[in-house]
Amino acid sequence: MRLMTVGSVAFDAIETPFGKTDKIIGGAGTYIAFSSSYFAEEQAIISVVGEDFPQEMLDKLANRGVNLDGLQIKKGEKSFFWSGRYHNDMNSRDTLVTELNVLENFDPVIPSHLNEVDYLMLGNLSPQVQRQVIERLNKRPKLVAMDTMNFWMDIAMDDLKETLKLVDVLIINDEEARQLSGEYSLVKAADKIRSMGPKYLIIKKGEHGALLFHEKNVFFAPALPLEEVFDPTGAGDTFAGGFMGYIASTDDFSFDNMKRAIITGSAMASFCVEEFGTGKLENLTKREIEDRIQEFVQLTNFEMVQSI
Amino acid sequence: MRLMTVGSVAFDAIETPFGKTDKIIGGAGTYIAFSSSYFAEEQAIISVVGEDFPQEMLDKLANRGVNLDGLQIKKGEKSFFWSGRYHNDMNSRDTLVTELNVLENFDPVIPSHLNEVDYLMLGNLSPQVQRQVIERLNKRPKLVAMDTMNFWMDIAMDDLKETLKLVDVLIINDEEARQLSGEYSLVKAADKIRSMGPKYLIIKKGEHGALLFHEKNVFFAPALPLEEVFDPTGAGDTFAGGFMGYIASTDDFSFDNMKRAIITGSAMASFCVEEFGTGKLENLTKREIEDRIQEFVQLTNFEMVQSI
Repeated sequence: MRLMTVGSVAFDAIETPFGKTDKIIGGAGTYIAFSSSYFAEEQAIISVVGEDFPQEMLDKLANRGVNLDGLQIKKGEKSFFWSGRYHNDMNSRDTLVTELNVLENFDPVIPSHLNEVDYLMLGNLSPQVQRQVIERLNKRPKLVAMDTMNFWMDIAMDDLKETLKLVDVLIINDEEARQLSGEYSLVKAADKIRSMGPKYLIIKKGEHGALLFHEKNVFFAPALPLEEVFDPTGAGDTFAGGFMGYIASTDDFSFDNMKRAIITGSAMASFCVEEFGTGKLENLTKREIEDRIQEFVQLTNFEMVQSI
Repeated sequence: MRLMTVGSVAFDAIETPFGKTDKIIGGAGTYIAFSSSYFAEEQAIISVVGEDFPQEMLDKLANRGVNLDGLQIKKGEKSFFWSGRYHNDMNSRDTLVTELNVLENFDPVIPSHLNEVDYLMLGNLSPQVQRQVIERLNKRPKLVAMDTMNFWMDIAMDDLKETLKLVDVLIINDEEARQLSGEYSLVKAADKIRSMGPKYLIIKKGEHGALLFHEKNVFFAPALPLEEVFDPTGAGDTFAGGFMGYIASTDDFSFDNMKRAIITGSAMASFCVEEFGTGKLENLTKREIEDRIQEFVQLTNFEMVQSI
């Protein structure tokens, strides 16, 4: 299998200054898989849902080429549910409800025919589950990327640090990088975090873009300035999916190609925030994605011609 | 005269988490003039100081090629003094003391031999004084850029709007852009502000870089990720000085050249924050500046090679 994604497939209910949804489809795994499906030709998802999860949505994922053999459907149980409300600036939010449900005892079983993967994307889940997946694979993937969040730093820091030792690329936001490292300066935070295991660190800064750190190299990718951010939910996962999908499809994780992967992830994230939920990510065209990537090229492209 | 800068030449006292200064030299005009002096071969400053201002500092400006014929020295009066304390995140600060002194009745007299200028940089001052300078020049400069701040939006919005009509480039920060336009989205804010007069709008986002808006074009320049920001005072003015100095020296305000000017301004600002006050800006070498600009090229440079 070229790319394996591990992450929640779930329900969300979201309030933003622009509106409010009932239960809609969400989950890190869902966003990652939709986003990477535009790049990686072959991918599987390892996840778990309850009996309440709509078959129609699973069909949509399957139609985008996502292998669901590792997605468990638990009879008589309910899917993970998260509900949150965004503040007016859209940069911060309050969690209103978290119902773990099927995630509470999630045992990430990997079907034997999916047991060799080139690229592994670990969406935000308990660091113990993330580590189990790495350990259960027959061989180590070429590249393992993971997301995590401050919640795990609060309650399972030791576990998290164990998992970080096994990971190549860590993808977190600026606040999480500061908490994980205890450093305010992101440059210092990056040094500390890379000493914990991941050779590559991507720090997402929301509307302010993303930074990639590797050895002495730093790359900065902007976010597209948008008229409105309608719903930021899933933007980080969509970014990760675009990033890892691009890496998997090109089979190249040189620093130069990681830059392209980050621009690609940023472009995908810019679609995600335009609608509630996964709506915008379900039916993009190649042309739309290429045009959006071109907007990033225009946005940042400059050439210094004149010496001072 | 190729470039004229109007702005305060003053005293500051600064507290940051890293330390505290006594009265040191500051002022928007000082930072702008030092910064632009590395690019513009010919520049003059229009400003006012009290008898308490050290001749040594004026000599330093003169030695960097800044014409001081329009800098008034008021006998028996005191220079403008500002004191502030930065919060731990270095992104916000409290003003502790503001003593207007000579700025209270500043009449920006332009010596007749300096009355024709190609490029005009209006540092943050009362919008009425800024407008007076434009009106007192014999002919309209090729390009007029100005800075302002929320203080003037609070107490002199009508005056500010009158001045904006006469200006080509407005350089403000994100918070100021939001206040001036009443829009949270910077894209919407940019549209509104450009309808007030300035054809070009630069929105500074501190450690998150800067955006340039012109017609349908947007350009994003990052800030350099630094280990420490030691003292942010004057960074915005230093940015403006580097920007306008580069434009003046190349005599080219095409969009492509404005991009280079913004990168140049960002590079200069990255030096400014490394020390208290103007220290770092007084003795840079060409080589240091070129190397720093090259760091920006490295930071943002990517090439999309592969169609998806």
